[in-house]
Amino acid sequence: MSQRPTILITNDDGVEAKGICELVSVAKDFGEIIVFAPDSARSGMSNAMTCGKPIFFKKIKTEGNVTWHSCTGTPTDCVKLAFSTIMRERKPDLLLSGINHGSNSAVNILYSGTMGAVLDGCVNGIPSVGFSLLDFDENADFSATKEHVRKIIEFALKNLNKGVCLNVNFPLGEIKGLKFCRQADACWSEEFENRGSDSEPEYWLAGEFKNREPQSDDTDEWALANGYASVVPTQVDMTCYSALKEFDNFKF
Amino acid sequence: MSQRPTILITNDDGVEAKGICELVSVAKDFGEIIVFAPDSARSGMSNAMTCGKPIFFKKIKTEGNVTWHSCTGTPTDCVKLAFSTIMRERKPDLLLSGINHGSNSAVNILYSGTMGAVLDGCVNGIPSVGFSLLDFDENADFSATKEHVRKIIEFALKNLNKGVCLNVNFPLGEIKGLKFCRQADACWSEEFENRGSDSEPEYWLAGEFKNREPQSDDTDEWALANGYASVVPTQVDMTCYSALKEFDNFKF
Repeated sequence: MSQRPTILITNDDGVEAKGICELVSVAKDFGEIIVFAPDSARSGMSNAMTCGKPIFFKKIKTEGNVTWHSCTGTPTDCVKLAFSTIMRERKPDLLLSGINHGSNSAVNILYSGTMGAVLDGCVNGIPSVGFSLLDFDENADFSATKEHVRKIIEFALKNLNKGVCLNVNFPLGEIKGLKFCRQADACWSEEFENRGSDSEPEYWLAGEFKNREPQSDDTDEWALANGYASVVPTQVDMTCYSALKEFDNFKF
Repeated sequence: MSQRPTILITNDDGVEAKGICELVSVAKDFGEIIVFAPDSARSGMSNAMTCGKPIFFKKIKTEGNVTWHSCTGTPTDCVKLAFSTIMRERKPDLLLSGINHGSNSAVNILYSGTMGAVLDGCVNGIPSVGFSLLDFDENADFSATKEHVRKIIEFALKNLNKGVCLNVNFPLGEIKGLKFCRQADACWSEEFENRGSDSEPEYWLAGEFKNREPQSDDTDEWALANGYASVVPTQVDMTCYSALKEFDNFKF
């Protein structure tokens, strides 16, 4: 890379969340930072896009090598709109998303707006990394994550190839180190609960997370449960190749 | 299966869309049908969930062995809410989603509400299949798809294992047959366009689809371009195992 890298930063908790400020505070040592993030929280938005109505963005401020923009769309919209407007001529060298307030490990990747943005960067051939801390509190303490965020940015700029992105989750408290691992097989149960009455029910998202393979020591859930930050190399190809091989000779 | 199967049917075009009616008309020959679908169109919603506000559902009607419900949430919400309420005691034997008005092949799986619901079924261990026709028209002609939908339902009830779902797309016009294939490597370019003015821009989703490997004859895009319905066995594990192997010995 002949010039300092340009880094696009987004999230799903909104441009004013503590987590994105913490991420910017580390990333700004590496190059030119373009923040392009939702104007308010967009949790659980997955890869949702805004169809059938327009979206808007504005520049908020420039502070040194960091320029901040807010956008009325989803995290995925933010990536697509940044690429179609202010980054049309020069795509970023790296896309970072987060630091999310709350876990995006295991199956949570499917529902995560943070990782939605990362997958969109990956589709577009940009090295992309999502960061999440296992603490939903809006004033969560991100201080233990900083040295590890720095190491991951260094790693991603040097080693991340097209078609592979990273899903990084940080445990609470002291972090023993970074551990490459696979996405655990997990699910949620009893996902909506009635907080209204029997006659006028109101269903709110709730539920209990279940790791289906707590014994396996090569998963992100294991790493997090044992004090490590989990780093899952992730791809957008969702083909199940073992099933494809099995079904290939089936005659309908 | 000792009793006739129970089949949950949802979509992302809304409970009144033509595509879901066509799917029900075929599926109702196989067992008890529970329709539980969004009350209006929810295209491009991916696996988005409704956080921070309640959702609601109501039974609309029962016609023979088909019971129709509408829900104020996303396609993923529909699956989760059905599992938490009317299907709490007995999960379905099969989940079907669609028939979507428009393609969900290749990278479109990431953004698709139709496939979001299917992935959620798969996470919950339910054999699940998404159907899409490459025609966005609300009065699209689904007649050529019917015999193939029937074959896929038969296949899925007999052969689909936990952890694998199917992404089925139908080409326009005559269908030469069903073809198992992998998800093509593709992307969208110039995804938002300004339909306002320079001084008051309004960004609308647009863009051009690009198949990055048009020569490969084992992809869903190839199948569709050559008159076949594409059937991609799909999984929720997005780990990139080749990168995991490559990175595993990296010392931070």
